[in-house]
Amino acid sequence: MTNFTKMTQFRPLPVSGVTLGGYLGERQDAICNSTAAVLLDRCVEVGMIDRIDVSVEAPLFHGHPATAEMFWDSDFGKSIETIAYSLYRRPNLELEARADRIIDLYEKLQQPDGYLNSWFQRVQPGKRWTNLRDTHELYCAGHLIEGAVAYYQATGKRKFLDIMCRYADYLAILFGRGPEQIRGYCGHEEIELALVKLARVTEERKYLDLAKYFIDERGQQPHFFDLEAQRTDRDPAVYEYNQSHQPVREQKKVVGHAVRAMYLYSGMADIATEFNDDSLTAALETLWDDLTTKQIYVTGGVGPAASNEGFTDHYDLPNDTAYAETCASVGLVFWASRMLGRGPNRRYADIMEQALYNGALPGLSIDGRTFFYDNPLESTGKHHRWNWHPCPCCPPNIARLVASIGSYMYAVAEDEIAVHLYGESVARLKLANGAEFELRQETNYPWEGAIAFTTRLARSARFSLSLRVPEWAEDATLSVNGTMVDLSAVVSDGYARIEREWADGDRVDLELPLELRPQYANPKIRQDAGRVALMRGPIVYCVEETDNGEDLNAIVLPRELPGAEAVVLEDLKDAVAIDLAVEREDAANWGKALYRQAPAERRPAKARFVPYHLWDNRAPGEMLVWMQSHK
Amino acid sequence: MTNFTKMTQFRPLPVSGVTLGGYLGERQDAICNSTAAVLLDRCVEVGMIDRIDVSVEAPLFHGHPATAEMFWDSDFGKSIETIAYSLYRRPNLELEARADRIIDLYEKLQQPDGYLNSWFQRVQPGKRWTNLRDTHELYCAGHLIEGAVAYYQATGKRKFLDIMCRYADYLAILFGRGPEQIRGYCGHEEIELALVKLARVTEERKYLDLAKYFIDERGQQPHFFDLEAQRTDRDPAVYEYNQSHQPVREQKKVVGHAVRAMYLYSGMADIATEFNDDSLTAALETLWDDLTTKQIYVTGGVGPAASNEGFTDHYDLPNDTAYAETCASVGLVFWASRMLGRGPNRRYADIMEQALYNGALPGLSIDGRTFFYDNPLESTGKHHRWNWHPCPCCPPNIARLVASIGSYMYAVAEDEIAVHLYGESVARLKLANGAEFELRQETNYPWEGAIAFTTRLARSARFSLSLRVPEWAEDATLSVNGTMVDLSAVVSDGYARIEREWADGDRVDLELPLELRPQYANPKIRQDAGRVALMRGPIVYCVEETDNGEDLNAIVLPRELPGAEAVVLEDLKDAVAIDLAVEREDAANWGKALYRQAPAERRPAKARFVPYHLWDNRAPGEMLVWMQSHK
Repeated sequence: MTNFTKMTQFRPLPVSGVTLGGYLGERQDAICNSTAAVLLDRCVEVGMIDRIDVSVEAPLFHGHPATAEMFWDSDFGKSIETIAYSLYRRPNLELEARADRIIDLYEKLQQPDGYLNSWFQRVQPGKRWTNLRDTHELYCAGHLIEGAVAYYQATGKRKFLDIMCRYADYLAILFGRGPEQIRGYCGHEEIELALVKLARVTEERKYLDLAKYFIDERGQQPHFFDLEAQRTDRDPAVYEYNQSHQPVREQKKVVGHAVRAMYLYSGMADIATEFNDDSLTAALETLWDDLTTKQIYVTGGVGPAASNEGFTDHYDLPNDTAYAETCASVGLVFWASRMLGRGPNRRYADIMEQALYNGALPGLSIDGRTFFYDNPLESTGKHHRWNWHPCPCCPPNIARLVASIGSYMYAVAEDEIAVHLYGESVARLKLANGAEFELRQETNYPWEGAIAFTTRLARSARFSLSLRVPEWAEDATLSVNGTMVDLSAVVSDGYARIEREWADGDRVDLELPLELRPQYANPKIRQDAGRVALMRGPIVYCVEETDNGEDLNAIVLPRELPGAEAVVLEDLKDAVAIDLAVEREDAANWGKALYRQAPAERRPAKARFVPYHLWDNRAPGEMLVWMQSHK
Repeated sequence: MTNFTKMTQFRPLPVSGVTLGGYLGERQDAICNSTAAVLLDRCVEVGMIDRIDVSVEAPLFHGHPATAEMFWDSDFGKSIETIAYSLYRRPNLELEARADRIIDLYEKLQQPDGYLNSWFQRVQPGKRWTNLRDTHELYCAGHLIEGAVAYYQATGKRKFLDIMCRYADYLAILFGRGPEQIRGYCGHEEIELALVKLARVTEERKYLDLAKYFIDERGQQPHFFDLEAQRTDRDPAVYEYNQSHQPVREQKKVVGHAVRAMYLYSGMADIATEFNDDSLTAALETLWDDLTTKQIYVTGGVGPAASNEGFTDHYDLPNDTAYAETCASVGLVFWASRMLGRGPNRRYADIMEQALYNGALPGLSIDGRTFFYDNPLESTGKHHRWNWHPCPCCPPNIARLVASIGSYMYAVAEDEIAVHLYGESVARLKLANGAEFELRQETNYPWEGAIAFTTRLARSARFSLSLRVPEWAEDATLSVNGTMVDLSAVVSDGYARIEREWADGDRVDLELPLELRPQYANPKIRQDAGRVALMRGPIVYCVEETDNGEDLNAIVLPRELPGAEAVVLEDLKDAVAIDLAVEREDAANWGKALYRQAPAERRPAKARFVPYHLWDNRAPGEMLVWMQSHK
């Protein structure tokens, strides 16, 4: 299946290269208008500024869980990253000034050797690098690096980038296989992908090499975490949890903490791309296969269990207790995006889109002010969005993803542009072959399936335009300047590749049929037995009590779905709901007995289905994705 | 619904009055031959003898959870109670000697004032009566009392009974509403029903009065546990947990810790019977209704949640995480039995039987040597019987119930005998009106529905024989000495009442049709939506992997159940299994995708159903009660 001969490397467009309209544009507006400031407000409320401000006495413990406090730096990193992306869309001097102040505090906090970690400088001084396994020390560095790269790119200000380069320079000396170096790596992966970003923006090879070292060293014997635990007299741990149970190239099953896994694989994919490392790619393809054919929710949520915030057994996908952390689906989008680095392939892009809309986007309320951390697929009415979370990792994570989503939509190679995701937008492109142009995408996707591309070029140019044809879009059609194209002739790996001399004003029309699609689960998923979910395009639907009354499990979907009616929901940013004729078990006339010999009577009913990612934005109540299916 | 005019009081037969054969007799053999000794062995292994032996230095903490150690006395109490009952069936000098030794140790441990509690005498001296809410202090007294009563009745030895009377005399002085008394009660109910037992055997009115005081005082304001917490500087607690949130007569919903609830209601029912207290009976009927129409598993398991070992919301009955503690169903049998004190009514007896066979009996392995604590209705293969449990309450509880089950089968009033449960047995009866006789029950129930009663009387006598006709036995037939009786004319509250002059050798034949019955759940139980369970007579069935292979959730039951075939399982004490034609979703040919647009193909298959209470007695694997139902 792998095409190891295809060495073309695709790079996402810079965030600044894409301007979004439409539905995703509205979600970005919510971040510019609310979320970006909300993130800082709530960081301040819990005392995070005092933590990094050396002029304030070190505020040891505020009653928040110490384990969450350990990674506060990462929340600042992700918040600044969010702010950075938001500034492209909406310049905001006040937000920028707030970010600058935080950066100034970090500058003062940084030690002469470059070290920078507010927990170990202010709460547990003297303990740095004593517990890489549990304390998120390099993880925090990684998020600060990502924030610094984004802030530099958005504002041109180098201060934060310089701070983090100094820290990274120190790390590059500290970690490695040399006799004086720490031969270790972080229990929570993140630094790997961050160093690749830093290398790309600084063109410093040593950051890439350090990232590769962290990837290569993970899980080697003698096990670093064994040695570390012996040194510091701690109990040993289960290494599946942080994916260090084996060298990464030998790993076949996606295990452990879901966010850690997604970040690791993202870093591996970056290194695979940068080093053309087929051994990493092969491992990643095995892991991708394992995740997507045995361990993923229909929503693109991953990591079913709260106990380890992660993976359990194959085909174990409980709905009401699904953990499916927002951050994990954000991480899956990262990974999928990076799997596209070696060429367009809908195997990755379809899942990227599914995880974006249904696994990650639920994490952000329609007003951008409240957040889901875990994402069950069934609720009895007790699961609601948070203002903030004791472990506040998800809010800035979904925010930075949405704020930068344009960069996930388009990627460019030497003489090719790939469109991975659809949505109203304008992309400004420059190919390595010199072609420079604007690609305008006009569409009401994901609510409607008509997508029109028009080119704007100063002078005509030869390149390929590769458009994803999702696996679900069986009867898609494509035309170029009004002439139908035979898709079967041009589709490879799920992308329609149109290679031609493009002129100004050329138009490509792609029509993706948005038929309502029942989704049945592999019979090995016991929790979905006898049940069906509904998708339309990339969107997973659910029923909510506010539309359908209580006892949602009494709804029975017919085998065929005639007369489905699309309804535009004005109170949900014009998202499309579906009204459908269903049957409903009659609880009202059931009688008093809890159990009886005759099944419930069923009567015809209407049910309204709304996009799962928009649930709990209106009146609270029950919610259900997997409904009873007529047999 | 309540018949407040029916004041007849029914008392269970003494355990010694019934000798069992058949299936329940075999279970009693397992207790005589294995369980009774196993209980003591394992008590000794964890250090319980050292705890009560004053000649050994007090062994403070063995690494077992302190909360379990706090109620070790209760486990001795229940173990001695089990031994006592087992001696009727099989005299065993060695077992009796071991019990006597424990009793001797308790005698030496008892303080001059009567106080007796190994935790507060040996582990936390000086703390007695400082935390009635959490420390099971009176609960332990209750179980020791029950053990003492049973041991006295079985052996005629008074020592243990005298010890516990001294303790109860002290309690009767200590607790009450007087100025010098503690106006409190126990956080874990048990002492109430134990004091009633003690009163009945000693004919001491003050024990009854003390039990009534504990019942009446519970939940009154100012709240005893509030005052106690203030005095001892502890945090307040949620009083639903121990059913002290309201005075008991005001309680409408079954809440909190399930075992506590069942024991409380049992005590209330005893007091209602002893004092003809209609206000208690009315409260109990409301609670019974709440439990049995909104909160009970089809197995008679109660208390779905592990977090509080108890009740949650109405209609919340998860199957794979069902707690449904063995002790709670044992407690439900206690409660149901006591609800029959004011007259036969199948409303109580049907549930008693259901909880006995399907909620309590699973707790004891077929060899009587291993135990279930919690009883899920679905297992992926990881749930197995324990040799012993950190909290060892269930093993002696199910053992003492089974060992004394004859006493739950028959009850007598002035001139009436009621048969609540069926099973091969001989009952020796003496009515208050002087009639003395033997009633022989010949049957292979619960595996076959033919039940024959024959009387053995020295001289003929007039009395009523009331036989339960379970609600599920729609086409039951009854004949007396070969003459058919019109059941509709003689059945009241679900009991066929035959009043006549009985002569030696009279024969009554009751035929209960054991049709396989599909059971559907109220649509408000979301976890059972689209699913069906199977019962036959009082027995709930399940499928196990050892008979049916993996992926049990792929089994789809047809709407009609033709061709069901009963199979006698020799390796499971001749229990009856059912072979049935079903459909099965094809997981093998599903393909690679985790989700797809077409449901799984279904093919005809055979499935074997075994009694749920016998699961995990053979090869380990998946188990399932609620199966997919054809719609």
